Amino acid sequence: MEPEKLDFDDMTPRQLRRYLQDKFVIVASNRGPLEFRRDNSGEIRARRGAGGVVTAMSTALLATDAVWISAARTPEDSEMARASGNGKVGMPPEDPQYWVRFIRPDPEPFRLYYDVISNTLLWFMQHYMFNVPESPVIDRETNRAWDEGYRAVNRLFAEEIVSEIEQTDRQPLVFLQDYHLFLCARYIRERAPHALIHHFTHSPWVQPDYFHLLPTRMRREIMQGLLSCDVVGFHTPRYAANFLQCCHEGDAVRVSLNMKKRSVGYGGREVLVRHYPISIDHEALKKTASRPEVEEKRRRLRERAGGRILLVRVDRIEPSKNIVRGMEAYRLFLRHFPHWRGKVTFAVLLYPSREGIPAYRRYRESVEESARRINEEFASDGWEPVYLEVEDDYLRSVAALTEYDALMVNPVFDGMNLVAKEGAVLNRRDGVILLSVNAGAYAEMRGAVLPVNPLDVWDTAQLINHALSMPAERRRAMALRAREIVMQNTSFKWLLRQIQNLRRAERIKKEETPHLESTLKFPSWMKQI
Amino acid sequence: MEPEKLDFDDMTPRQLRRYLQDKFVIVASNRGPLEFRRDNSGEIRARRGAGGVVTAMSTALLATDAVWISAARTPEDSEMARASGNGKVGMPPEDPQYWVRFIRPDPEPFRLYYDVISNTLLWFMQHYMFNVPESPVIDRETNRAWDEGYRAVNRLFAEEIVSEIEQTDRQPLVFLQDYHLFLCARYIRERAPHALIHHFTHSPWVQPDYFHLLPTRMRREIMQGLLSCDVVGFHTPRYAANFLQCCHEGDAVRVSLNMKKRSVGYGGREVLVRHYPISIDHEALKKTASRPEVEEKRRRLRERAGGRILLVRVDRIEPSKNIVRGMEAYRLFLRHFPHWRGKVTFAVLLYPSREGIPAYRRYRESVEESARRINEEFASDGWEPVYLEVEDDYLRSVAALTEYDALMVNPVFDGMNLVAKEGAVLNRRDGVILLSVNAGAYAEMRGAVLPVNPLDVWDTAQLINHALSMPAERRRAMALRAREIVMQNTSFKWLLRQIQNLRRAERIKKEETPHLESTLKFPSWMKQI
Repeated sequence: MEPEKLDFDDMTPRQLRRYLQDKFVIVASNRGPLEFRRDNSGEIRARRGAGGVVTAMSTALLATDAVWISAARTPEDSEMARASGNGKVGMPPEDPQYWVRFIRPDPEPFRLYYDVISNTLLWFMQHYMFNVPESPVIDRETNRAWDEGYRAVNRLFAEEIVSEIEQTDRQPLVFLQDYHLFLCARYIRERAPHALIHHFTHSPWVQPDYFHLLPTRMRREIMQGLLSCDVVGFHTPRYAANFLQCCHEGDAVRVSLNMKKRSVGYGGREVLVRHYPISIDHEALKKTASRPEVEEKRRRLRERAGGRILLVRVDRIEPSKNIVRGMEAYRLFLRHFPHWRGKVTFAVLLYPSREGIPAYRRYRESVEESARRINEEFASDGWEPVYLEVEDDYLRSVAALTEYDALMVNPVFDGMNLVAKEGAVLNRRDGVILLSVNAGAYAEMRGAVLPVNPLDVWDTAQLINHALSMPAERRRAMALRAREIVMQNTSFKWLLRQIQNLRRAERIKKEETPHLESTLKFPSWMKQI
Repeated sequence: MEPEKLDFDDMTPRQLRRYLQDKFVIVASNRGPLEFRRDNSGEIRARRGAGGVVTAMSTALLATDAVWISAARTPEDSEMARASGNGKVGMPPEDPQYWVRFIRPDPEPFRLYYDVISNTLLWFMQHYMFNVPESPVIDRETNRAWDEGYRAVNRLFAEEIVSEIEQTDRQPLVFLQDYHLFLCARYIRERAPHALIHHFTHSPWVQPDYFHLLPTRMRREIMQGLLSCDVVGFHTPRYAANFLQCCHEGDAVRVSLNMKKRSVGYGGREVLVRHYPISIDHEALKKTASRPEVEEKRRRLRERAGGRILLVRVDRIEPSKNIVRGMEAYRLFLRHFPHWRGKVTFAVLLYPSREGIPAYRRYRESVEESARRINEEFASDGWEPVYLEVEDDYLRSVAALTEYDALMVNPVFDGMNLVAKEGAVLNRRDGVILLSVNAGAYAEMRGAVLPVNPLDVWDTAQLINHALSMPAERRRAMALRAREIVMQNTSFKWLLRQIQNLRRAERIKKEETPHLESTLKFPSWMKQI
C-alpha cells in the first residue's frame, strides 16, 4: 500500500496489520490484558481483562507480534513470566497473537506508585475530587512516594520498553496508557530518540488553577513526560483544551504553543495534542449479550424487580461515580412523586473497587447505608425500592443494560464512561439514559440523553420522573439516536486515529524546518503565573 | 475641570469629590461601614467596620453625600434606621460625611441568602473548596434558598438602590460588592436603565469546569446579573481571565467576546471586564499602629514569646486560610530542623468567624487540636512552640504584624489577602513573608515574598527554615521590596480606577455604533459546552 493512499478512516483490521508489518507496536499500561491466578484446584488460570483499552487494543493487535507491558499483579503473573523463558506470555495463551510482558516492582515501590500517587493524588486531582481545605496534605511521605514509587515504576516500564526497542530493527510505535505512566516517555526518549510515542489519558484533564494544586516539581515532571511524546491524546476537546491551557499558563516548563495546529513546541520538538473518544467493541459486546448466562441473569433481575419499571446503575464503587447522590436523587423522586412508589425498582449493580484505600471503604459504607435508609423509608409489601448488589459480575451488568427503562450515569467527573455507550447499544426497551454533563461520553451523546448536573439531586430527581413519564415515541427516538451515535464510533477507530496521528507527527519530524512559531491565541494578559 | 483633562492616576480625594459633584454615589455591600449594638449599660453604640472595602470607600466618600446600603445585622441597626426619620444614618454619626441605609430582610430569607447560598454554596465554589464526591448536595432546600433567600435579598437591595436613584437628578454611580450581590444589577437595570453600575468581586473567580458545578439556572442568573453591569472588576488578571473564559464557555447565556478590549457583549450592551487589586489605607494603618495600646500589645507578645524568633499568622478562622496545614508545616519544621527547637514561637492569632456554620466550628476544633498536639510533642521548660489566640482583637494583629520575623500567609485560595500587605508595611524587623501562590496578593508581591504551594506542607516546612536562615541583607532587601510594592498602590487608587472605568463605559454607551463584533481569541474548538 502506498503511504499516500492510506485511508485511516476506513481501514480494516487486515489493512492495519499490513501497515504495521514494518513497525513494532508496544503497549504499556498499569493493568494488562491478562492476569494469572491459581484456582481452587491449585492450577494457574489466565483471566482476560475486560476494560476499554484491552478491548480496543486486542482486536487491532491480532497477529501483529506486538508486546504489551504491564505490572504483575499476582504472584502467578510473575511465575508465568519466569516460566515462559523469554519473559513473554502469549495472548491468548492457547493461540498467541501478541505477547504480554510483566514488570515486577517490589511491593513497597508499587504501593507508593499505585496507591499513594496514582490512585490517591493523581486520580483525585484529575477528577476535581480534592477536599481542598483538608486533603491532600502533601508531606514527606508523598514526596518520597513520588521519588521512590512513581518515578521508579515509570522507569521500570521505560526500561522494559527500551529493551524491547533495542531488540528490533522495525520502527517502534509506543502506546502509553493513562495517569500511571505520565513520566515514562521522557525516560524512553533519553535512550530511544527515534521511537514514536503516543500517550493517552483516559481520565479527564483539569484546568490550570486545579492542576497547579500539585507541587511544581511534580507538575514539571508530568509535563516533561507528556511533552516527550510525539502525540498526547484525550477523550474530548475539553480535556485537550485544558491540557493546552495548562501548557500555556504553567510555570513548570517553557513551551511555545501553536493553537491552530494544536501542538506544543518543547525542547526543539513538536508535540501534537489530539482528542479521540474511546468506544466499545460492538461485535464482542453483542456476542457476550447473547450468552445463555446473560439470559438467565436477565430473567433473575426481572424476577427480583417483580416486573416493575427498572432504573439501573452499573458502576465500580468509586467516589467519582457519584453513587450516593444518585441514591439521594431517587429518594427525593420517591418522596415528591409518590405515584411512582411501588412501581419502580432501582437496581444498583456495583463492583468492589480499590478496597485498600480507606476513602473507598468509607464510600462503600455510605452507599450501603444510603440504600438501607431508602428501603427503610419506602419499602412496602413485596416492593424493594433499591436492589443493591456488590459483586464482580460483568455478565450481570450486561444483562441489566439490556433491561433498563432508565439508566442512571451521574458521575461528578468521568474521563469517558463506557456504561452509557454499552447501555445505548445493548438496551432493548427504549430505555432513557440520564448522563452527567461531566462525563466524557456526554460530548458525543448530548441530545440523545437527559443531561444531569451531578451535584443537583433535586434536578436529578425531577429528571427521573421526566424519564419515566416520557411518551413512548420520544423514548424510542432518543434511544435510537443514542444507539446511532455510539455505533458510529468503534474502539478500533480510536486506535486507528492514534496511529494516524503518530504518522503525522513522524512527517513533521522529517520536515527540514519544523514550524514552531508561537501563534498564541490566548491573549497575552491571560498569562497568569 | 474639563473631562478631557481628567487624570485619574494622580487625582486627589479633593479632585475626586469635585468630579463627583454632579453624580450620586451608591455603595451596596452585605456588611456595611457601621454596626450598632447596645453596650452593657444599655446604650446604643456605633462600631465602625474595619474591612478593606470600608476603608477604601470611606476616604473617597467624605463629603460626597453618598449613600451606603447594607443589611441590618443587629436589632439596633434597625432601631437606629427607624429613629433617623428618613431611614439614613450619618457616617460618622458625630459629623456625617455620607449616609448609611439598612435593608431589613426577615430572619429566614436572610439566613437562606447569607448562610445557605452566599457563605456555603458560593464562597466554597469560588475558593475551589467543594468536597466534590460528598458536598454540596444541591437539594430542594438549596433551590428554595436561592429563590426565597438569595434572589429575595438581592431584590431588596435593588429596590433600596432604585428608590435612592429615583430621588435624585444627578447621575447615579452604583458600586455593588462581592458574591452576596451577584443578582442585584439586573434588578436595578430593569428600573433604572441609565444608572452606571460597577460590580466588584472580592473573592477569586474560578475556571469554567468548576463554575459549571453550579446548576445551570443559578449560573445563568449570576451571569445575567453581572452582565447587567457596565463594568465588572476583579483583583487580578487571573480572575478576570477566568471570568471571560466562563463567559466564553458557558451554556447559560449567549454572549459575544472582545478579548482585546476585554469586554463582553450581552443583550445589546457592552460590559467591561477589568482587574484592579484592592490595597490598604496606609495613613490610617500607620495611625493605628502608633496607638499606645498597640505598643502595649506588642510588648506583651514579645514577653509571651520570651524574646524568641516570631513566626506569626493573622487570620479569620476560615478553611480557605489553610490554618491546619500551616500548623502541620510548622510541626514538620520542628521535627526535621531540630536546631530551631526552643528558639521559635509560632503566634497564631485568629478571629472567630461564621460560627453558625458547622464546617467552621469543626475547622476551629481542628486548629485547636493541631496546636495542642504540637505543644504536647515539643514543649519544653519555658518554651511554648505554638501560642494560639482566638479573639476579635484587631490591635493585637497590628502589633503582631510589626513584630514578626516571618509571616505565614498560606491560604488554599484567597481573593486578595490584605494581611500580607499590612505586614509588608507595618513590619519593623525585616520579616520574611511566606505567601501562597493562590492568594491574589501574590500577583503583585511575587519576588518580594517566598512562594508557598498551600497543599505542600513539606515544602512549606522547608520554606520556614529557609526564611529563618536567610542572611540579614537578603531579608532586608526582600522586606524593602515588599514594602515598596505595597506602597505603590492604595485603596483610594483602587476606587479611582473603578470610577475611571465607569466613565469609559459611559462613553462606549454614547457611541452611536458600539463595536460588538466578536474578536474571539480562544480558538473555536475550545468552545466546550
